[in-house]
Amino acid sequence: MKQVIVVNDSLKLPKGKLAAQVAHASVSAFLAADELTKQVWLKNGMPKVVLKGENEEYLMKLQTRAEEQGVPAQLIEDAGRTVVPEGTVTCLGLGPAPESELDGLTGELKLLR
Amino acid sequence: MKQVIVVNDSLKLPKGKLAAQVAHASVSAFLAADELTKQVWLKNGMPKVVLKGENEEYLMKLQTRAEEQGVPAQLIEDAGRTVVPEGTVTCLGLGPAPESELDGLTGELKLLR
Repeated sequence: MKQVIVVNDSLKLPKGKLAAQVAHASVSAFLAADELTKQVWLKNGMPKVVLKGENEEYLMKLQTRAEEQGVPAQLIEDAGRTVVPEGTVTCLGLGPAPESELDGLTGELKLLR
Repeated sequence: MKQVIVVNDSLKLPKGKLAAQVAHASVSAFLAADELTKQVWLKNGMPKVVLKGENEEYLMKLQTRAEEQGVPAQLIEDAGRTVVPEGTVTCLGLGPAPESELDGLTGELKLLR
């Protein structure tokens, strides 16, 4: 059971801004999970990885595919107060969900370094 | 009502790793809040900022001060599988809590950019 956060790599956000958006995705996707999934994920130490998605369109397609497979998927739009225009899609939170399901969705994406 | 995540700026973590640690702090500190605080914070769009703390010692002192004031404070240690040694303190999650309380604790810290 893990969580995957896919960031919109076309934005090249400053790292503090990026971290806040990833945290937003992580909390949102966590809250969308069922109770048992939440408990298992918390007990395992909340494993998560942050991966790169090409752009907003890619993240939106990935959200659709995830939801078709029953994986909770939360698309995060920035409130637009600071760095990017309002409504910009910054990242997508997936899971917690079984690793095999997430790997099927995101296995080809690269780690954000 | 907001959340503040203070990162250990001495580590200079890669941004993906940093984002995952900040997300960990955000979820942990959220779960430590009381139910009413959680609901108010979620309803307001989960406002959060990411600030820089000098080093591990600073984060630990800040945790103590926060807890003395009744602000939920979650210190995050890395599991040590990848970039840093096991047990390294990467960040501190504070709140959600009233802005005035958090500003008293962290008002002099700089935004992570």
